Amino acid sequence: MTFPSRTTNQEIELGTTLQPKFGADGLIPCITQDAATGEVLMFAFMNAESLATTLKSKKATYWSRSRSKLWMKGEESGNVQWVKSLHTDCDQDVILIKVEQTGSANASCHNGYKSCFYRRLADLDDPAFKLEYTAERLFDPATVYKKK
Amino acid sequence: MTFPSRTTNQEIELGTTLQPKFGADGLIPCITQDAATGEVLMFAFMNAESLATTLKSKKATYWSRSRSKLWMKGEESGNVQWVKSLHTDCDQDVILIKVEQTGSANASCHNGYKSCFYRRLADLDDPAFKLEYTAERLFDPATVYKKK
Repeated sequence: MTFPSRTTNQEIELGTTLQPKFGADGLIPCITQDAATGEVLMFAFMNAESLATTLKSKKATYWSRSRSKLWMKGEESGNVQWVKSLHTDCDQDVILIKVEQTGSANASCHNGYKSCFYRRLADLDDPAFKLEYTAERLFDPATVYKKK
Repeated sequence: MTFPSRTTNQEIELGTTLQPKFGADGLIPCITQDAATGEVLMFAFMNAESLATTLKSKKATYWSRSRSKLWMKGEESGNVQWVKSLHTDCDQDVILIKVEQTGSANASCHNGYKSCFYRRLADLDDPAFKLEYTAERLFDPATVYKKK
């Protein structure tokens, strides 16, 4: 699967053909949102192969920078993300997917939370930058993943 | 304003102190979401100074890579984003802010849309990768910005 080449700014920004910009490292950022609730579940990167695999399989597939390999979300945990729609931004250098998060734990995050964004600043003016949790843990990673 | 240093994985992933990871280029990705609706409005980068400015002013302030300068959203258009909360992900290398998008046009995107993500693939299986619009234009950029 080859994606259309980048053309003019006009076509990229206001046209109707996907022309994704992969960076110098071959990657495009991807925001993953819960299709039903709008909650942002995670943020990762895709290369052309993972974007193609995502479209073909409908299962969110990223590029793992730490492992340098395709990473089908849920391949270990079973928490597969079924892609419902795929969006891009004005200059087509970011992908946004809306997914149905599935699996027994229904969690996106390896730490056992629905979303990776399970903490926020308790007070924007706090000079100690204290975070507070905004989510309940759905599973304990120690019981799911083998200890490394 | 100096942010806490990165400590252990355990502290970063499960602790309660913000320890943002700025990349080798000094930047951290930022996802901006409408606080009321959950719509993803835009994606940009922050450096330490823009994150500090955002927290101090409560007005979303990014780092413009193309202009190499701080970029207070709305400084030209008036479409200021007031920050309601600031979140981070498990490994604290992404920021998510929830904002109230203001301004006469109430638009985040320079192309005149509420969100930069105003197009999606019409059909995930379409080999021509045709995009369809999912939003109405709120203003015509030609009448707002000076021609370059």
